[in-house]
Amino acid sequence: MKRLTGTNDEIAKILSQEQLELSKENLDAEATVREIIERVKEEGDEALRAYSKKFDQVELFDLQVSDQAINEAFDKIDRDVLSALQNAKANIESYHKQQLETGFEDQPSQGVIRGQLIRPIERVGVYVPGGTAAYPSSVLMNVLPAKIAGVKEIIMITPPQKDFNPAILVAAKMAGVDKIYQVGGSQGIAALAYGTQTIPKVDKITGPGNIFVATAKKLVYGLVGIDMIAGPSEIGVIADETAHPAYVAADLLSQAEHDVRARAILVTDSEELADAVEAEIERQLQTLPRQTIARPSIENNGRIIIAQDADSMFELMNLVAPEHLEIAMDKAYDYLDKVQNAGSVFLGHYTSEPIGDYYAGANHVLPTTATSRFSSALGVHDFIKRIQYTQYDQYAVNQAEKDITTLAYAEGLQAHARAIEVRHDKH
Amino acid sequence: MKRLTGTNDEIAKILSQEQLELSKENLDAEATVREIIERVKEEGDEALRAYSKKFDQVELFDLQVSDQAINEAFDKIDRDVLSALQNAKANIESYHKQQLETGFEDQPSQGVIRGQLIRPIERVGVYVPGGTAAYPSSVLMNVLPAKIAGVKEIIMITPPQKDFNPAILVAAKMAGVDKIYQVGGSQGIAALAYGTQTIPKVDKITGPGNIFVATAKKLVYGLVGIDMIAGPSEIGVIADETAHPAYVAADLLSQAEHDVRARAILVTDSEELADAVEAEIERQLQTLPRQTIARPSIENNGRIIIAQDADSMFELMNLVAPEHLEIAMDKAYDYLDKVQNAGSVFLGHYTSEPIGDYYAGANHVLPTTATSRFSSALGVHDFIKRIQYTQYDQYAVNQAEKDITTLAYAEGLQAHARAIEVRHDKH
Repeated sequence: MKRLTGTNDEIAKILSQEQLELSKENLDAEATVREIIERVKEEGDEALRAYSKKFDQVELFDLQVSDQAINEAFDKIDRDVLSALQNAKANIESYHKQQLETGFEDQPSQGVIRGQLIRPIERVGVYVPGGTAAYPSSVLMNVLPAKIAGVKEIIMITPPQKDFNPAILVAAKMAGVDKIYQVGGSQGIAALAYGTQTIPKVDKITGPGNIFVATAKKLVYGLVGIDMIAGPSEIGVIADETAHPAYVAADLLSQAEHDVRARAILVTDSEELADAVEAEIERQLQTLPRQTIARPSIENNGRIIIAQDADSMFELMNLVAPEHLEIAMDKAYDYLDKVQNAGSVFLGHYTSEPIGDYYAGANHVLPTTATSRFSSALGVHDFIKRIQYTQYDQYAVNQAEKDITTLAYAEGLQAHARAIEVRHDKH
Repeated sequence: MKRLTGTNDEIAKILSQEQLELSKENLDAEATVREIIERVKEEGDEALRAYSKKFDQVELFDLQVSDQAINEAFDKIDRDVLSALQNAKANIESYHKQQLETGFEDQPSQGVIRGQLIRPIERVGVYVPGGTAAYPSSVLMNVLPAKIAGVKEIIMITPPQKDFNPAILVAAKMAGVDKIYQVGGSQGIAALAYGTQTIPKVDKITGPGNIFVATAKKLVYGLVGIDMIAGPSEIGVIADETAHPAYVAADLLSQAEHDVRARAILVTDSEELADAVEAEIERQLQTLPRQTIARPSIENNGRIIIAQDADSMFELMNLVAPEHLEIAMDKAYDYLDKVQNAGSVFLGHYTSEPIGDYYAGANHVLPTTATSRFSSALGVHDFIKRIQYTQYDQYAVNQAEKDITTLAYAEGLQAHARAIEVRHDKH
């Protein structure tokens, strides 16, 4: 792991430079993806079949995954996995129900009513990657908040496969997906955005995917809503001398095993701890099955930042604005006040980040690449709309007439002024 | 105005086709804007001065607008405008304060604490267009929600001008802007996204602008947050036989005068009303100062949709998903239940849309081009982040160990499992 030392300002400058590099656009896939989207828009299902043959080597008969296949998945799934998914579901639900919002209404003056309605988005599409990146936990994390928000129809798409991972189909059914279609890549995103003969057009698309999926989401954004464009996964750990090097190392590696581009960042005020964590990482890597991924990830993107004291640790970590933040300190909870930027925070020596990935209930779809400075974990709020409303009676509009028309004339918008004046009781 | 008649399905198909046309990307400006952003990123203030000379014909000495200029604006501003802005500000504040969110925390089982913090975004940049499109009301609408959210620093940028509109500077100061810089266009957006020697880098950018500003916002999105990319403004009016043709016509025109691309859509179950509104529009257009804008807007983009009954009117209008929605019916409030998609709703015969543009308190920065299907008016929620947190003690993590490791192994992520196992009290 690369060590960064110096004043906070010097370290801040390095972090800022590294973030710029990470947020550089990847334009390579764009031309190809534009062409695929255009064809799906023109040809619908026919284009989906052609692309499935080309990219997935599958001749598709039924685009929709049958109820029979879903029922069979319940027979095939490992009982322990089923039970773990059920428990995770209950935790995710009880956490996310606390995010439900209600509207408001007030009557600030005579003849005036103002308010805000909360409405679920009507139809949502969830993308679920295929193959080894098929994570049933991600199905729960994407679908359950939409369901709790009250979304009427949830459509899932996933690349066609001879044998679907039963846990994916079970998680989908359990979470309340209404229909599953087997189509992946940018053609799948295009189908959700424009609709085809078989697949209904949705209002918003969520879920992770490769560069083609991400590029397609970016291109259809505006016509439909999207969740976010996720970058490589990150963990930031703030640890002082009370931290256990073996725990910290294990958590850094749990992030590093995701992807060679994943980033693991330790901020500590203890050089001793930094040394011990590095030794532990090496020891644990020796026997790690995914060490071919975790080792280059740690070596290239691992960072140890040596800070002067607790305040500096938090100040620097707020600049990192990590997706996952662990606070490995004895009184971790008391330091929550100092957290300004992070997707999800894990407090104390025992709250390993995978607890959150799978189980505790908070969402694992999180803002990466320092975007937690301005955005948040996926939640119920991503599946609702806030609709404003206002009612003025004739008395109220006449009372407000002078102010409103003054502003309208000052902005040179006479028709705005007239729309108020025409309501005046003299007229 | 073009009339659409037929079954709901037939009208729905036409509306969907028109929406596709509207949401087509405009790629023309992209290459130019990319180049401008790159130069600002490299050269900072020097690039800003060069572009201001080139695009605004202004030799800039001070990028920052001085306190003296702001104080002078308070002397110059028309007293009635000042008073109207103060009243509007009070209404906007009292409405938006109702949007403030609080976090939550629960203890779902022994040794487990979960919660969600609400944190303001730290630094926000607001773009304010120059010249005739300089609207003091927009300054209030963009800045006040950020201020109420608790944003620490609000930076405003606006194109350089010999004489600033005093109402713009007054509105900025009144709303709580911390610093104003005179730089416009995509170079201004680039300065906010990357920072320069003078202008600090922000976390999120809001505010309307021309195609160069919109394209720049789209390109820097990800490095910073943005509010939305607004399309042409729209009004939808649902009116039955109780509506006043003169009021409806005036409101449709108040939208049409904004822009030749603005859209005014009337949905009614009364052909008589439709005829009367059309006659009124013609009558009112005769004397309207901005008729050279309003007339082509109404003629090209005006639509009258004849629906069968109240349910059909709402069903079709929910497909339009208008930015502004007026319900010109006697018991308008009772129909709120039927509204699924709209940015802001104006209830009853007297609630003319300009009441909302300027005054009542709900925000006027709204989702256009049917994006109210999945997004909402600008509000306090756009200036906060929700940070999740979780704490498990050793007992709790050991209790959850089997479920978590089962899922981790099922997903092939062994380091995730090990991070849990290493915390087991046997170790």
